[in-house]
Amino acid sequence: MRQYEMLELSARGAPPEGSEALSAVSAVFRRGGEETRVDGFYAGNGVYKVRFLPEKTGAYRYEITGDALAAPQRGAFTVDAAERGKHGPVRAEGIHLRHADGTWYHGFGTTVYALAHQSEALIAETMETLAASPFNKLRTCVFPKHYTYNENNPACYPFERRAGVPERAFPASETPPVPQKRETRDDYWDVNRPCYAFWDALDRRLKQLEKLGIETDLILFHPYDRWGFSNLSQEDSLVYLSYLLRRIAAYPHVWWSLANEYDLCLNKTDDDWRTFARFIAAHDPYRHLLSNHNCFKLWDPAEKEITHVSWQTRELSRVAAAQRRWNKPVLVDECRYEGNVPEFWGNVSGADMTSRFWKVTVQGGYCTHGETFLPGTAQGGRATATGEADVVWWAKGGKLNGESPERIRFLREIVESLPGPLEPLGGGLGDVIGMSDGEVQDMIDHAPPGFNHFLARMARMNEAERDRFFGIEYQYRGHVGEDAYLYYLDDQCAAAVQVELPANRYYRVEVLDTWAMTRETVAEHASGTVRAALPGRPYMAVLAVAEPHRKSV
Amino acid sequence: MRQYEMLELSARGAPPEGSEALSAVSAVFRRGGEETRVDGFYAGNGVYKVRFLPEKTGAYRYEITGDALAAPQRGAFTVDAAERGKHGPVRAEGIHLRHADGTWYHGFGTTVYALAHQSEALIAETMETLAASPFNKLRTCVFPKHYTYNENNPACYPFERRAGVPERAFPASETPPVPQKRETRDDYWDVNRPCYAFWDALDRRLKQLEKLGIETDLILFHPYDRWGFSNLSQEDSLVYLSYLLRRIAAYPHVWWSLANEYDLCLNKTDDDWRTFARFIAAHDPYRHLLSNHNCFKLWDPAEKEITHVSWQTRELSRVAAAQRRWNKPVLVDECRYEGNVPEFWGNVSGADMTSRFWKVTVQGGYCTHGETFLPGTAQGGRATATGEADVVWWAKGGKLNGESPERIRFLREIVESLPGPLEPLGGGLGDVIGMSDGEVQDMIDHAPPGFNHFLARMARMNEAERDRFFGIEYQYRGHVGEDAYLYYLDDQCAAAVQVELPANRYYRVEVLDTWAMTRETVAEHASGTVRAALPGRPYMAVLAVAEPHRKSV
Repeated sequence: MRQYEMLELSARGAPPEGSEALSAVSAVFRRGGEETRVDGFYAGNGVYKVRFLPEKTGAYRYEITGDALAAPQRGAFTVDAAERGKHGPVRAEGIHLRHADGTWYHGFGTTVYALAHQSEALIAETMETLAASPFNKLRTCVFPKHYTYNENNPACYPFERRAGVPERAFPASETPPVPQKRETRDDYWDVNRPCYAFWDALDRRLKQLEKLGIETDLILFHPYDRWGFSNLSQEDSLVYLSYLLRRIAAYPHVWWSLANEYDLCLNKTDDDWRTFARFIAAHDPYRHLLSNHNCFKLWDPAEKEITHVSWQTRELSRVAAAQRRWNKPVLVDECRYEGNVPEFWGNVSGADMTSRFWKVTVQGGYCTHGETFLPGTAQGGRATATGEADVVWWAKGGKLNGESPERIRFLREIVESLPGPLEPLGGGLGDVIGMSDGEVQDMIDHAPPGFNHFLARMARMNEAERDRFFGIEYQYRGHVGEDAYLYYLDDQCAAAVQVELPANRYYRVEVLDTWAMTRETVAEHASGTVRAALPGRPYMAVLAVAEPHRKSV
Repeated sequence: MRQYEMLELSARGAPPEGSEALSAVSAVFRRGGEETRVDGFYAGNGVYKVRFLPEKTGAYRYEITGDALAAPQRGAFTVDAAERGKHGPVRAEGIHLRHADGTWYHGFGTTVYALAHQSEALIAETMETLAASPFNKLRTCVFPKHYTYNENNPACYPFERRAGVPERAFPASETPPVPQKRETRDDYWDVNRPCYAFWDALDRRLKQLEKLGIETDLILFHPYDRWGFSNLSQEDSLVYLSYLLRRIAAYPHVWWSLANEYDLCLNKTDDDWRTFARFIAAHDPYRHLLSNHNCFKLWDPAEKEITHVSWQTRELSRVAAAQRRWNKPVLVDECRYEGNVPEFWGNVSGADMTSRFWKVTVQGGYCTHGETFLPGTAQGGRATATGEADVVWWAKGGKLNGESPERIRFLREIVESLPGPLEPLGGGLGDVIGMSDGEVQDMIDHAPPGFNHFLARMARMNEAERDRFFGIEYQYRGHVGEDAYLYYLDDQCAAAVQVELPANRYYRVEVLDTWAMTRETVAEHASGTVRAALPGRPYMAVLAVAEPHRKSV
């Protein structure tokens, strides 16, 4: 057994008499005086399983108990130190993400919503693409998806249908259910009878993704549905979540995304979501990351169980203010997709998608990619080699055709070369977003002379006015303490830029073309105010990294 | 005498004994039963002048009176119909701008703030550039400008200094005055003694601009000052305005811009601006356009004297909402400038500047250009042939070096080919900005099926939430009744677009590349829903113009 790797114990027993989802097998794992209790699950065919994720090395003892078992099962094992490259679950630390072993996690996400519901051939192709991509996070749904370019039924569903109910075909032409608050169990789906073929397949996907080093932000509910999963009653939903947690929580790389676009799930109330969050927090022994993703209205990141901001937004200048306000990591999970579909959310250029990553990342946020080329129009017209129709990466996977991934890799390499995680750099004008009046006054007091009109008037703006103004006039700048400074100039075609560095250290200053993926050293042993020439094109950045030897002063 | 052309009458008299700015010469012009009273001005050297702009043809009689004159002067003249191409003052009509003769004015502005304070050689070059440009509006200041790249003193100032006060040199290094509310007359400038050389030169500029067909948005106050003009007392300011109105108001093409960035003029209160607006409205017989331009906070366009919205903003999606709210023309007078200076307001690409014009223009708004290449770095390094240093178009004029002007010409030609002025097209999602709850509900009721989650949630957003969301997710679409439809796709790289046309008429549909300046007809005799293929690049537009023959239904 290895640290940060799921271990699985099996026990045979009589099939459950009641719910197969809530089977009463559980286990205790003991290591010295520490004890972890985990719920097991029924895996079909008279087999019960218990999964456990050891986060510490050493000698463990365990005991599995349950009514279905003839007798408790006991045993012992030793957990050795983690294999190289295994860092354990990612968790929030202030505004950053960090693995359990202390390694910083620099997240670069992508989106394949309906990955689990595609053919084996297409999934295999998607995994190959992911392996060669710069992405180390995936947003993907448990339930199948009904939407434009998403018309196929999956091979199987998470639940069996109710005994005695005739099978339904769910043709693509079928009208989606009207969202409604239900108090009764579903007429068709029996959430107490998991479809084991579905969950076995989901296990295979999670294992593939784990092997690729891809954190998996698993979306538990979403509104794009024709099968009825978006309309489950609260009672049914909790049964589903219970089985999912028993089965999935011990993977090191899963995150819980309560919803994709919670606010479009019209049959659920805010209290329903809070109930889910509390249920998961109470039943996940590993405290995996937990968020709730919006369409319009950000889910309140202040709620205790919410570990980070999972934000659909185009207002990328607001990342730093959100970090300051909630002191939690800010993930921009949907900011438009690279592609050419007619829909407004899915047709930005590769340059634009790349730029969005830079804006979010230099502030110390985390951005998520998606690709939506109209089937048949992607570069070379091949979104998949499987011959399947209507394959769009953002929903089904296949091949990546865009221009942003290699540039996101360029960014990732830069970020991973820094001595620590980026934080937004104060002092820029945009920094006033969310500042108190006193902080703004302080900024004015320390501003260069000749800037008095502008700053004095700014000081008289109320918070909403400032927020609105500087949400647009934002300067994207980050730093790693005094060890590194990264300015991203976005659409500015400046012929020169001024970088402010501490006077008591030396820096190497590079000009980066984030589109052409070039780096040019423009100064060494630089200190204080450094002016660097720029080529007058958009998408430039400037990186200053402290040199090893300190300046003697 | 011609309709829409200023006429000037002179009378000799004794020099004024008190104020030379407020000399008590006035005139009455009578045409049939109509009577117009205008104030004259002292022009120096014992000459008094009265200027008058006849807007109607026919026989006029006049009488000039004043204490300084030995006797009233009387006379008569006939005003003939306007010369071809002379359309009279531009005024607001609903959200549009229209000349006095009924010709629509399609405004495409540019900015040369300190035009009047440059050398004759540079001004001549600027006029040549303007003549060859697509621009038909200019924003320019009466007072000289002190700012980065604006260090030269002008040859003369609007006022003489006080008698007995030693001349000051005003070196560029001099500290700008601290903005302060003053109750006393200026210590140095004597506003009651106009500098006639200055005003004569200003007359020459206005005549040159009139000849070029360029409407002149004359900026009366601004904060970028080292001479003290931004700190005049209210009493001094009104003397200045009085002389300016007597002298300048009879030009057909002048507009009054109370300020550039009124909210940075820290010595003036909102009531001061209201006093100016009322004073101008009361003393301008021609009701020229009157606005007040902001830095941060839009001046309230609801005020009675304000004829249009003169808006510094980057939120170009809000033009239609502003039109709806105030039912006045919306002019985006500063939305960043094409160039490469390090300052964030002055370094967008030509593509971006062009895109800003399209966004504003398709909504029926009016956009203003500026160009700010760092001296020495413009294409070919020549912003001027005069050999002068630090010449940046936006302040001093010279030559245009950017990529946007020819593309703004392409847009202007399209707009001028349409059968009337554009208005924002309702029905797009962005259209909900400023909608009432009832209007939103109506939109939902008439929406296509399958869109229920999105719209139903939108209906639950409050106005601020909608405003914020759709300020970003805006669809830039305009129309001219049912005669023409123009969609601008901005940064969307769509492979196809769907255009909704009335079913009872035929249209010619063109795909426009606003950057490459190409037009391709993709459908003729088209009606109803038309889907057009697009190349998947940014900056595309689609234009549908009704064909002459109606569909038989």
